[in-house]
Amino acid sequence: MSSKVIGIQEEGKEIQRVEKLAIILSKGTLDMVYPAFMLATTAAALGKEVHIFLTFWGLNVVSKKGIKKIKLSPVGNPALPMPNILGILPGMTELVTRMIKKKVEKVKLPSIEELIKTAKENGVKLHACSTTMDVMGIKKEDLIPEVDDIVGAATFLELSEGATTLFI
Amino acid sequence: MSSKVIGIQEEGKEIQRVEKLAIILSKGTLDMVYPAFMLATTAAALGKEVHIFLTFWGLNVVSKKGIKKIKLSPVGNPALPMPNILGILPGMTELVTRMIKKKVEKVKLPSIEELIKTAKENGVKLHACSTTMDVMGIKKEDLIPEVDDIVGAATFLELSEGATTLFI
Amino acid sequence: MSSKVIGIQEEGKEIQRVEKLAIILSKGTLDMVYPAFMLATTAAALGKEVHIFLTFWGLNVVSKKGIKKIKLSPVGNPALPMPNILGILPGMTELVTRMIKKKVEKVKLPSIEELIKTAKENGVKLHACSTTMDVMGIKKEDLIPEVDDIVGAATFLELSEGATTLFI
Repeated sequence: MSSKVIGIQEEGKEIQRVEKLAIILSKGTLDMVYPAFMLATTAAALGKEVHIFLTFWGLNVVSKKGIKKIKLSPVGNPALPMPNILGILPGMTELVTRMIKKKVEKVKLPSIEELIKTAKENGVKLHACSTTMDVMGIKKEDLIPEVDDIVGAATFLELSEGATTLFI
Repeated sequence: MSSKVIGIQEEGKEIQRVEKLAIILSKGTLDMVYPAFMLATTAAALGKEVHIFLTFWGLNVVSKKGIKKIKLSPVGNPALPMPNILGILPGMTELVTRMIKKKVEKVKLPSIEELIKTAKENGVKLHACSTTMDVMGIKKEDLIPEVDDIVGAATFLELSEGATTLFI
Repeated sequence: MSSKVIGIQEEGKEIQRVEKLAIILSKGTLDMVYPAFMLATTAAALGKEVHIFLTFWGLNVVSKKGIKKIKLSPVGNPALPMPNILGILPGMTELVTRMIKKKVEKVKLPSIEELIKTAKENGVKLHACSTTMDVMGIKKEDLIPEVDDIVGAATFLELSEGATTLFI
């Protein structure tokens, strides 16, 4: 519960460095999973303690079945260069997902599975939300082994004490 | 404007505990309203001072008319086990909302109205965004009585001084 | 990398004021761009140091072509008083965007271009995400001149050290 804040007194002002990053990942689309894991891994590589709390659609990232369903939805992103009507035709989400995945490969960005692997190697902790698991009927054995533990909101708030906390 | 940060000097390092949680709730769908209120109530139950600033679609949570319209949109959540095309047929949002509400009842999660009641009982403060109310043509009498006050962004930033702040 | 936190010792308790706001803007729809810039400009007007990191769809805000495409999608906002089916008809996004823009004008809210101008005048720094630019094939010359620099996630995490950080 105590935070890893390092305070140094200098010229009457206090210089503070937050040594923790906590991310609540509630979305299950590629365009939100990427920034979450890129921020987490970058922060961990910089030496920070990093926790990701996977809740609601974010739980798909760590569920054996869900991880295959992570897609980029073109609906609701009007910035995408296609009329919304296309986005709702069956197969379009798959098409856009493939297009983005190809682009991502071209610039050598890692896949979701690689993102998880790299995050874990850098010490990022993955916490699955117990309440969401109950709501969605997900069991412990449905989760990938990279998950560190299953916790409730209270435990996560304690883990993230003193952290920079982002809701994604 | 002064924060409720408690600093304890221990072994040359400073242990800090953030005693405030501030949530900017900008979404009006069930899947975002739930985590917002669950985090808020949990934090309040842990003894923190908690503020929710309701802006844009989040304002529906505290508007008499809007609260009935809070639904779970299946569009844009490609992780949901149904093709996007279904999500846009009239009635499908209602169907998915009912399905999720039923699941939620099964695990005995509270309803939105109960979430608001419990949050208020635990001391969570609800602030309606004045600018959004102007944009959307919402008047003071359109809000539910649980709202504590109507404030602008500057006041909210001052209220959340020193808090862990989440944008949902 | 040192933060602008001002610590004052008073009656044994420490009063702290966070002097920095950092926003990671990942969305490209009007309803998310508005709160991002309104919070940024308000915080800057209150004397805070403010950084916006534009990533994924948020990059459209600072791309010459993208800025014209920023719209309010009615799909996925079930709180909007229209069946979802309307939202996906070609032209509906444009219609809703025009409707909201008109309402916004009526209450004298600034346009996106004015929001950027005012933010810059108040000292808000705009940072474009280098990784997203690579993924989306956006080049330096495609960005509007208001962008301060192109940086990676590590640099942004350092810039936002000690800040209240929001993911929008």
